Amino acid sequence: MKGLVYGGAGQRTWMEIPDAHVRDPRDAVIRIDAVTICGTDLHILAGDVPQVTPGRVLGHEAVGTVVETGPALNGLGVGDRVVASCISACGSCRFCREAVYGQCQRGSGWILGHTIDGVQAEYARIPFADLSTYRLPSQVSSETAVMLADILPTSYEVGVLNGRVRPGDTVVVVGAGPIGLAAIITAKLFSPAHIVAIDRAESRLQAAKILGADVTLTPERVALGTIRALTDGLGAHVVMEAVGTPETFELCTTLVRPGGTVANIGVHGKPATLHLEDLWTRNLTITTGLVDTYSTPKLLAMLAAGQIDVTQLVTHRFALEEIEEAYDVFARPAQTGALKVLLTR
Amino acid sequence: MKGLVYGGAGQRTWMEIPDAHVRDPRDAVIRIDAVTICGTDLHILAGDVPQVTPGRVLGHEAVGTVVETGPALNGLGVGDRVVASCISACGSCRFCREAVYGQCQRGSGWILGHTIDGVQAEYARIPFADLSTYRLPSQVSSETAVMLADILPTSYEVGVLNGRVRPGDTVVVVGAGPIGLAAIITAKLFSPAHIVAIDRAESRLQAAKILGADVTLTPERVALGTIRALTDGLGAHVVMEAVGTPETFELCTTLVRPGGTVANIGVHGKPATLHLEDLWTRNLTITTGLVDTYSTPKLLAMLAAGQIDVTQLVTHRFALEEIEEAYDVFARPAQTGALKVLLTR
Repeated sequence: MKGLVYGGAGQRTWMEIPDAHVRDPRDAVIRIDAVTICGTDLHILAGDVPQVTPGRVLGHEAVGTVVETGPALNGLGVGDRVVASCISACGSCRFCREAVYGQCQRGSGWILGHTIDGVQAEYARIPFADLSTYRLPSQVSSETAVMLADILPTSYEVGVLNGRVRPGDTVVVVGAGPIGLAAIITAKLFSPAHIVAIDRAESRLQAAKILGADVTLTPERVALGTIRALTDGLGAHVVMEAVGTPETFELCTTLVRPGGTVANIGVHGKPATLHLEDLWTRNLTITTGLVDTYSTPKLLAMLAAGQIDVTQLVTHRFALEEIEEAYDVFARPAQTGALKVLLTR
Repeated sequence: MKGLVYGGAGQRTWMEIPDAHVRDPRDAVIRIDAVTICGTDLHILAGDVPQVTPGRVLGHEAVGTVVETGPALNGLGVGDRVVASCISACGSCRFCREAVYGQCQRGSGWILGHTIDGVQAEYARIPFADLSTYRLPSQVSSETAVMLADILPTSYEVGVLNGRVRPGDTVVVVGAGPIGLAAIITAKLFSPAHIVAIDRAESRLQAAKILGADVTLTPERVALGTIRALTDGLGAHVVMEAVGTPETFELCTTLVRPGGTVANIGVHGKPATLHLEDLWTRNLTITTGLVDTYSTPKLLAMLAAGQIDVTQLVTHRFALEEIEEAYDVFARPAQTGALKVLLTR
């Protein structure tokens, strides 16, 4: 079989690798039907995620068909079409027992394409497959379901639910990449009064408009003034950080009203400055988090019912063996307009 | 009448000042029976609170007897013994309507001894007195009730309730001054498994032990190791910051477990570093806040019923006209062992 192998900073090659097989009783092996690239994969290639060592198969967002099952798997059989979650959780450690699967002490939360081989390959081994995969109903396409592996539950749980979006709120999403756009899609479920998207790229702001943002701003425009004008001078109820830089995080803390929430979704490599000298009086809540995927079954049901629609997120399609080219397109969104790139076979 | 007048950084004088009178229809004037000094008053004297201008009478924690009432005051009469809250709230602006009195758009929350003359005086004018004072039942002494003006509701709302202390939790309080000690007293209401107090001063750690902390640590001892040993290696469920420095805030974010809460109570004059590169995955909640005083009636009822006891917080007593000496004692807690200093007449 073939897979995309990380070779150290900047290096990734589609190459022959050893076949995936069941190793543990709760493993499944899936044939990859659809897979995407995540912004986190670019962080890995930039050398920002030192846990990923050369030789690792990348990827943690895929839909596949079960071809082999471990002896301890209940409710999952060969031929089942499933989404493999980015979170591998044992289900029985003290965090899993509280549904905090992202902090699993055995799976350690995110391991696919991180500390074990991932899903940008022809086949992949999925640990704890009874808990970490979701069988797909026929009306949900693989192309749609692949958004359940990471970006939909991440943006919904870590952004919208942690941020406590309520009807009538003014919601600001800083960063209109795939995660920020998925946050806009799922924030709409709570009927906010306004969704403001902030990004540098006009193509992403266009996508934000189509998906539900009623105000779009580039950072250069005076975001604070616009948001104050929308909110009687008070600031946004909820601000979501979906970029992962100190500057964008600090921007979020200036845009939020007293009593509001800044929900961090972005992957950060550097510390930020928290201006407690201004913020200590402001009844602010700041949240961080890795997705726990407790919402994945409900999101799947909403996709099946047509209540949420993610089809606009895929901008580019490739065959699986063209994945090196797909990385080139995904890594240059300003030039290519790429949001999610989809690889199928 | 006499009052303690701020004269610029480092200057405060007990001196003759103009008599307090009703100016607005919802004002009351109270004769001060008991008053304390707050750590915030020391911040003002250090020049850290530029909104306080020379000539201002300081103080925002007092119990008094109503001697004059404005024509619009309902339910409050001459001769009533009341605690005057540190928060002056109109009750009708959009924040007050949501019980977020600390962000009041008319009273601006904390104004006594800040932007209007305060209560370290023989008499004081209390704005919005129908909402901002609480009539005291006979079984609650003035010495006890004065803790309701600020430190009890602040530590309870901004520390314990924002921190979401739950039964069985391990709770860490960084800073065992009056606010931290009041946080220990009120955290106990939720039956945590452990309360860990951290401070530099042994006298304050002794007080913390008496008031309910089962573990006391100086910052020099290895706090992280001790707290991990108490919590199966996971860290504290709730960490409260009750000092107000970047170092202590950053310590809090290292002591909290995944999924835990850092509740900031401290008054900060400088920004802190938020290590998002470690914290982005940790399902952390950080809260800030000015007290709203929505809990004051319940805290008063608990004091009246003997469910909470704050008598140990007063270490030094003075006559009101000895307030300059009281400041000297309160400003040097390492030498004097001072927690709250009480002035009465």
